[in-house]
Amino acid sequence: MTQENTYKNITSEKLQSLVKAVFLNIGCSEFDACLASDVLLSADLRGIDSHGVARLNGYVNLWKKKRINTQPNIKIIHQTPSTATLDADKALGLIAAPYAMNIAITKAKEYGSGWVAIKNSNHFGIAAFHALLATQHDMIGFAMTNASPLVAPTFSSERLLGTNPMCWAVPAGKYNPVVVDMATSTAANGKLEIAQRQKKAIPKGWVQTKEGKITTDPKELKQGGALLPLGSSREMASHKGFGLASVVDIFSGVLSGANYGPWVPPFVSFLEPLTPSVGEGLGHFVGAMRIDAFRSVSEFKHNMDIWIERFSMATPIDDQQPVIIPGSPEFTLEKERLANGIPIIDEVVSDLEKLCNELGIRNDL
Amino acid sequence: MTQENTYKNITSEKLQSLVKAVFLNIGCSEFDACLASDVLLSADLRGIDSHGVARLNGYVNLWKKKRINTQPNIKIIHQTPSTATLDADKALGLIAAPYAMNIAITKAKEYGSGWVAIKNSNHFGIAAFHALLATQHDMIGFAMTNASPLVAPTFSSERLLGTNPMCWAVPAGKYNPVVVDMATSTAANGKLEIAQRQKKAIPKGWVQTKEGKITTDPKELKQGGALLPLGSSREMASHKGFGLASVVDIFSGVLSGANYGPWVPPFVSFLEPLTPSVGEGLGHFVGAMRIDAFRSVSEFKHNMDIWIERFSMATPIDDQQPVIIPGSPEFTLEKERLANGIPIIDEVVSDLEKLCNELGIRNDL
Repeated sequence: MTQENTYKNITSEKLQSLVKAVFLNIGCSEFDACLASDVLLSADLRGIDSHGVARLNGYVNLWKKKRINTQPNIKIIHQTPSTATLDADKALGLIAAPYAMNIAITKAKEYGSGWVAIKNSNHFGIAAFHALLATQHDMIGFAMTNASPLVAPTFSSERLLGTNPMCWAVPAGKYNPVVVDMATSTAANGKLEIAQRQKKAIPKGWVQTKEGKITTDPKELKQGGALLPLGSSREMASHKGFGLASVVDIFSGVLSGANYGPWVPPFVSFLEPLTPSVGEGLGHFVGAMRIDAFRSVSEFKHNMDIWIERFSMATPIDDQQPVIIPGSPEFTLEKERLANGIPIIDEVVSDLEKLCNELGIRNDL
Repeated sequence: MTQENTYKNITSEKLQSLVKAVFLNIGCSEFDACLASDVLLSADLRGIDSHGVARLNGYVNLWKKKRINTQPNIKIIHQTPSTATLDADKALGLIAAPYAMNIAITKAKEYGSGWVAIKNSNHFGIAAFHALLATQHDMIGFAMTNASPLVAPTFSSERLLGTNPMCWAVPAGKYNPVVVDMATSTAANGKLEIAQRQKKAIPKGWVQTKEGKITTDPKELKQGGALLPLGSSREMASHKGFGLASVVDIFSGVLSGANYGPWVPPFVSFLEPLTPSVGEGLGHFVGAMRIDAFRSVSEFKHNMDIWIERFSMATPIDDQQPVIIPGSPEFTLEKERLANGIPIIDEVVSDLEKLCNELGIRNDL
């Protein structure tokens, strides 16, 4: 028994102006409200619907609980020429991450590369938004974050890691940047939510039950089960997904002074963070490397174009399904949704309307 | 019908002295021969048998073909305070990568981090050796390399990527460093070779045939098939493994000026590199970040110890199989093999003896 969603098509302008009004309403500055709504909208535009306006309510709820500070004093607490550590002062991660990326870019301009660890932050939206900032300066961008524990290490039934994404964004010449933006679990939580809403079974290898048994029921995750690390089973090298998620946790949490592992604060406001904590808030790690710190930009971009062309032409197994260059579908979708509007599922539209009513914001969705 | 191997147990001293004699014989300096034999031995000691002395013959064959230069003039061809690009002058990667890592460490000492792209190099052995160099200086180490094409992108039947490993090595306090050193394919080639020697079937998800069909026959790889990217199938997110391998290829090949994709020169000397090439040799990318460029070393190490303890204690699915901290089995094995010798399979012992005879090196294996 499956149940398809119905959608409302909304222009990105209308959606962004609503999101911005909400962020202004809860105390963000004009600049921060613009930026935060840019980050959320970019997720919806790029088709990462789970990380866009669907989460707006969640940010507001964390603000109500005083776990998000909309007037933060973000500051550098430690630095060297090519590195820095930021205390985000409980800022929206949507604000803290671009702030950090700008520091990384500034350092890269002067010293070749810049690397910034951020503590005391919150969920930062999609990693690609932040990494792509660097590509505008002919730099390679890098972003990762730890997140609420939902993923079990290989051999464990316990949720100790977030879906901990890693993202690299690499500029090309004639083509869009190559963007690898991936949760280090096999399935991102967003896919589970969709399967749950549609009451569909999920493939074996995405989720285990709380006893550690493989399941096809997406509801098991909410019943104490766990997402599986990329690789899904030991035989298919899930220890590699576990290793990648660990690297993200260590860079984002341990290196910055944020929480890590099971101590990462939950995104949902009805769950309290574990006490005593081992750090402050959750953490991110971002970086930027100037291309011409290694090789001339024109040579690099010319070779990236050859790379993209060669991989695009790879012999397909099925003639109907060519190889997909990482990041390419998201750019295509962004263009399409900018032109034709964004399909928002009814449930999210209704949540947004409720939120506007509650905050006294006029909406014309 | 399976066929188990028989082994000869050889002390690491004896093995290293043989390997060093071979490298001296083909023209390496005393320093380079020591270093190269250190790198190869560390693979055997850590249990990555496919990347150790079993490959010695391969390096010698490449030298005979003049594709490896044992008296290279490795030089920095481009740099900024925190970055550099090296031309390895066809050096053994076993030499070029530690050379590059030392530059990264020197830059990190002064500027917080150091990142080095290397072109015109050859196979660099195990990534962990190079990344671990940084941990001796209270730095996080990073190493990756592209490699001969054996892996097909998701949706393709064509081999366009190597097993392209990524490695991070992170120092801890009371415990050994956390080391994530992983091929970005589901199975490393070494595992295939073992299955082939033992005439065993392999699990579905490691290899596809040249038509792109999943197979359990390890021989299909040599018959034009391909290794699969981490994730194995599109449903289990093999596009993420493809994305990771692409990042390694771009950083190691495109950024450095080396070859990339199908143009990466083969390790086996009987296959010629594609012409015209798109760069020089194969490429690596290494980096080092000072821990105290972000946070005090003692705080960081204390928190790494908590991280390791918490993950070690993760509730196991099966009481007999606790969670494994990334890198931990390799340290255990290294200690054991240093004490008790290294089991080398008869086939490799016989290859080493032949090599010694051919080069006129006395051996007492």
